[in-house]
Amino acid sequence: MKIIEAKTAPNARRVRMFLAEKNLLNTVTFEQVDIQAGANLSPEYRKKNITTKVPVLELDGGECIGESVAICRYFEALNPEPSLMGKTPFEQASIEMWQRRAEFHLMLPVGMCFQHTTGYFKDRMLPVPAYGEECGREALRFMGLLDEHLATSQFLAGESFSIADITALCAIDFARVVKLRMADEWVHLKRWHGDVSARPSAAV
Amino acid sequence: MKIIEAKTAPNARRVRMFLAEKNLLNTVTFEQVDIQAGANLSPEYRKKNITTKVPVLELDGGECIGESVAICRYFEALNPEPSLMGKTPFEQASIEMWQRRAEFHLMLPVGMCFQHTTGYFKDRMLPVPAYGEECGREALRFMGLLDEHLATSQFLAGESFSIADITALCAIDFARVVKLRMADEWVHLKRWHGDVSARPSAAV
Repeated sequence: MKIIEAKTAPNARRVRMFLAEKNLLNTVTFEQVDIQAGANLSPEYRKKNITTKVPVLELDGGECIGESVAICRYFEALNPEPSLMGKTPFEQASIEMWQRRAEFHLMLPVGMCFQHTTGYFKDRMLPVPAYGEECGREALRFMGLLDEHLATSQFLAGESFSIADITALCAIDFARVVKLRMADEWVHLKRWHGDVSARPSAAV
Repeated sequence: MKIIEAKTAPNARRVRMFLAEKNLLNTVTFEQVDIQAGANLSPEYRKKNITTKVPVLELDGGECIGESVAICRYFEALNPEPSLMGKTPFEQASIEMWQRRAEFHLMLPVGMCFQHTTGYFKDRMLPVPAYGEECGREALRFMGLLDEHLATSQFLAGESFSIADITALCAIDFARVVKLRMADEWVHLKRWHGDVSARPSAAV
């Protein structure tokens, strides 16, 4: 199996961290694609992932799976232990809820803030700086909400580390690129960030 | 079990359609919340769903699950037949991939086009019309991509109807509110739209 990724992209880090938590990193080879140069826009890459996004998982039979969470889902189904997406119906739903909250209110706005305020992909999209700035404020609002939530919860989805924590960590760390940082008074969020950053998987 | 929703919201329709496909609609009661009046912003509602979004599933024990796909995940885990989120690892991943593509490139941009061009929620967010218009174009681009994909695929994720089709249908139908419509030449997308719209679940 091969993962085609851009090493510095936050979605690529999510998948690597997920695999590291399952001790599966060495079962996959990694290949880099230069997204700033637009190598992912080639017809060959588009055959692997019609949306041209990274990362993509290419199975030995040639089938491809795009979307970071879909790639994680594949590995979770094949290797259920340790569980990062939940076992009971309630755990599965609770993790999906927090994973989606972290994705829609944090990972996505941070990415939009990056794309719309830096013009990184301005050769292939129309940056709207006013929207990028609003997204930055949205990401900070959600960090404050997470701080409130983490006052009474060890991890995002309760007492077990999950894919929701991976999404939130990768988003918060990438947010530094656009100068969005956790406020000093968010002690619960900072406690969680310290705990999660100390996991060996956070360094891969 | 109770679902608190806003009947006309596309995310609420997704959940109802999912339940109808599983013949579970009559196992749940529905309660309406007036989102335009901001009833979902009350402290009571926020206790049920900290992001204040609809719908939310309230279990008999009082626990709440927000996020439409997380609610669907809960019912899928409890009632695996008929499967709408896949059985084998590859099916699960493929459905998750298409569900996410439909969500990020269609449902979300349609929603952003609605919010940023109509000012529907301008009392609680800053509309950026230029961004809303770009989102409308993004949604149309993805409809064209879906047309290409559906030339060789019966449903979004292959030969079986899935949650990905529900997301895409609800997004495309809601898009009419902001005058985004399928082009006449998208015959494959229109074939699929006709097939999926004819399912009894599409009417709930």
